[in-house]
Amino acid sequence: MTPKTSMTTDLISSERVEGTSVYNSAGDKLGSIDDLVIDKRSGQVRYAVMEFGGFLGIDTDRYPIPWNMLRYDTDKDGYVVPLDKAKLENAPKYRDEDVPVYDLTYGKRVNGYYGVDW
Amino acid sequence: MTPKTSMTTDLISSERVEGTSVYNSAGDKLGSIDDLVIDKRSGQVRYAVMEFGGFLGIDTDRYPIPWNMLRYDTDKDGYVVPLDKAKLENAPKYRDEDVPVYDLTYGKRVNGYYGVDW
Repeated sequence: MTPKTSMTTDLISSERVEGTSVYNSAGDKLGSIDDLVIDKRSGQVRYAVMEFGGFLGIDTDRYPIPWNMLRYDTDKDGYVVPLDKAKLENAPKYRDEDVPVYDLTYGKRVNGYYGVDW
Repeated sequence: MTPKTSMTTDLISSERVEGTSVYNSAGDKLGSIDDLVIDKRSGQVRYAVMEFGGFLGIDTDRYPIPWNMLRYDTDKDGYVVPLDKAKLENAPKYRDEDVPVYDLTYGKRVNGYYGVDW
């Protein structure tokens, strides 16, 4: 077999990114990625939209997280974010069926909450 | 109403990018985007996977196009690629159900065909 380069395994269908697990820095699973928000000109992902399981699947809130807060962890085959559940409790969120327009106002609100430059 | 910045309207759900029309430089519609291939570390889109309609929906071939060949056209609300149908006839492609591993060999083959650096 041909040894794979790191670039090899780094490419993945956007459809397959959705569903990838997200962990906090302590290694606890927080949730999974439900959607990606992309700059359609540059092709750069700007937000990962996370879902957090909820109780019996009833709570379907979605949390946009600025992409540069996510770090891919090969061992976990998932993303790690430096967040705890308490921080997420008051974080910007929306229902799956009620996706906001990702405009300047909304982007600044999300990034402001996490202290990340817009 | 608040005037929107260009950044405002540039953000879009990856699910909504899929289905976006793709045109050649002459303005003819070539097909549409079926999928995106993303570097899961950097969050950069590396390939747009296009479908070309086909005859009565029977031909469901998918064509990976290096992302940096695509230019977003606001007026068309779609992407423009400097390609014609003749160039696409022999281009790397696969059936929808037969997605290749986007490894070094495959990436070099695709980029080599279009003369784009891997």
